[in-house]
Amino acid sequence: MKFLSFRKSGAPSWGLLRDDGIVDLGGEAADLRAFIAAGCPDADTLAGRPVDHVLADVVLDPVIPNPSKIVMAAINYFEPGSDPLKAPEYPVLFLRLPASQIGHGASLMRPRSSAKLDFEGELAVIIGQGGRHISRDRAFDHVAGYSIYNDGSVRDWQKHSHQFTPGKNFVGTGAFGPWMVTADDMPQWPLSLVTRVNGIEKQRTDTSRMIFDIPYLINYISTFTPLEPGDVIVTGTCSGFGSIRKPPEFLNSGDVVEIEIEGIGTLSNPVADEE
Amino acid sequence: MKFLSFRKSGAPSWGLLRDDGIVDLGGEAADLRAFIAAGCPDADTLAGRPVDHVLADVVLDPVIPNPSKIVMAAINYFEPGSDPLKAPEYPVLFLRLPASQIGHGASLMRPRSSAKLDFEGELAVIIGQGGRHISRDRAFDHVAGYSIYNDGSVRDWQKHSHQFTPGKNFVGTGAFGPWMVTADDMPQWPLSLVTRVNGIEKQRTDTSRMIFDIPYLINYISTFTPLEPGDVIVTGTCSGFGSIRKPPEFLNSGDVVEIEIEGIGTLSNPVADEE
Repeated sequence: MKFLSFRKSGAPSWGLLRDDGIVDLGGEAADLRAFIAAGCPDADTLAGRPVDHVLADVVLDPVIPNPSKIVMAAINYFEPGSDPLKAPEYPVLFLRLPASQIGHGASLMRPRSSAKLDFEGELAVIIGQGGRHISRDRAFDHVAGYSIYNDGSVRDWQKHSHQFTPGKNFVGTGAFGPWMVTADDMPQWPLSLVTRVNGIEKQRTDTSRMIFDIPYLINYISTFTPLEPGDVIVTGTCSGFGSIRKPPEFLNSGDVVEIEIEGIGTLSNPVADEE
Repeated sequence: MKFLSFRKSGAPSWGLLRDDGIVDLGGEAADLRAFIAAGCPDADTLAGRPVDHVLADVVLDPVIPNPSKIVMAAINYFEPGSDPLKAPEYPVLFLRLPASQIGHGASLMRPRSSAKLDFEGELAVIIGQGGRHISRDRAFDHVAGYSIYNDGSVRDWQKHSHQFTPGKNFVGTGAFGPWMVTADDMPQWPLSLVTRVNGIEKQRTDTSRMIFDIPYLINYISTFTPLEPGDVIVTGTCSGFGSIRKPPEFLNSGDVVEIEIEGIGTLSNPVADEE
């Protein structure tokens, strides 16, 4: 099943996406996060309701607009030919604020204060049942579903100091969507991931190349903080993003960034300058 | 005026502290954050009500238990004799999750997974009116009040990678209290700040030695993210914390950490081992 958060005529709601349209579930729970926290009750029955909207008539919000936390892994893929023995000992983690998020189709914001907006295509894990000290072998029991994240990065601000916080938290830089595919509806892993800018491929990998896999991340993160329903773990990027290309390539107003992950879909966002 | 968040017989509330006790304001707004967001309406009238509780009968919560963001500055004080010309160009910022917070009197948690719990005594700024792109000369118009923060740090996890996130977000490591003093009730600046462990002085500075002052931080942070009412900016520490002492000193179960800031009070927390 696919769940999504959206606005219809400006009013926020959430629902279930079928081939023929959206079943509006705004009356069932306050938001998708609350529905996940309740264990997605009666999802099969709800999926049989008539549709309320066509996809083209709504504006998509971030899949979870209001997670209690968004934990981001930095670069987390082995490149072809790289030596697994040279992997780092621990993942590199930073936090993104919900205020930085946008939905599928919304504009990635190139801020007034920088010309160095970059993209990173990543797989997002959405937590179902919360917990602390979650073991690796029980980790997948805590996953509600998967989505796509563009960890849009303002590279000069990211490098103002050794901590990434400012450059990873600009308004309008964290694109999250278009929807969540429930864990039971995902295809056989590994999943391919491709990022394109204006139709030209920039990143390609598959999830078998992750350095710190999903069970590792869930275990590691839940050692220091409780994971809660609707929390988002964004699993890191592979090579090919703009700032490490030669010459570097940054995003400009009018560019379109697409990230496609097998079994989920394509997250697409145009780029616009902050006014 | 002093505002605080607390639990009475397990039920969360918030209120105003006078010399004779607490005026319970739980009926006026959902929480202190909501009251601040409303502009602290009728505060003078509310201050004249009879008291409902004595301070000793309540359990203090973090001053703002649920801020939309907690932005932390790393080391941010000139040491005596240091050269201001060698100051860094930008502040070092990281994020703390609300789930890591505790109130005055609660136990700082030394986690199962580390023996390297450390303290950092810091001044906390609580945002009143929100905003983005706040100029330095208007910054103080956006401050509701001040409090004290112990940025408890799990040093080995902080150094697992170049990003501080894990070591700065363990449950029970961010002590915030005892209360907020409103900006209009603060004494003349600069304010002295002293940290003691088991009564022995470990850190001493005053706010005139801040490298990046409060207006700078408010301007810089609001360039990338909107500040919202109840948001917390923790302004960084000075030298003298445990891990840079020779030999290093880490906290053990039974230790007591006190941070005293002029015009605010003393934040005190015992240390306990995670069970």
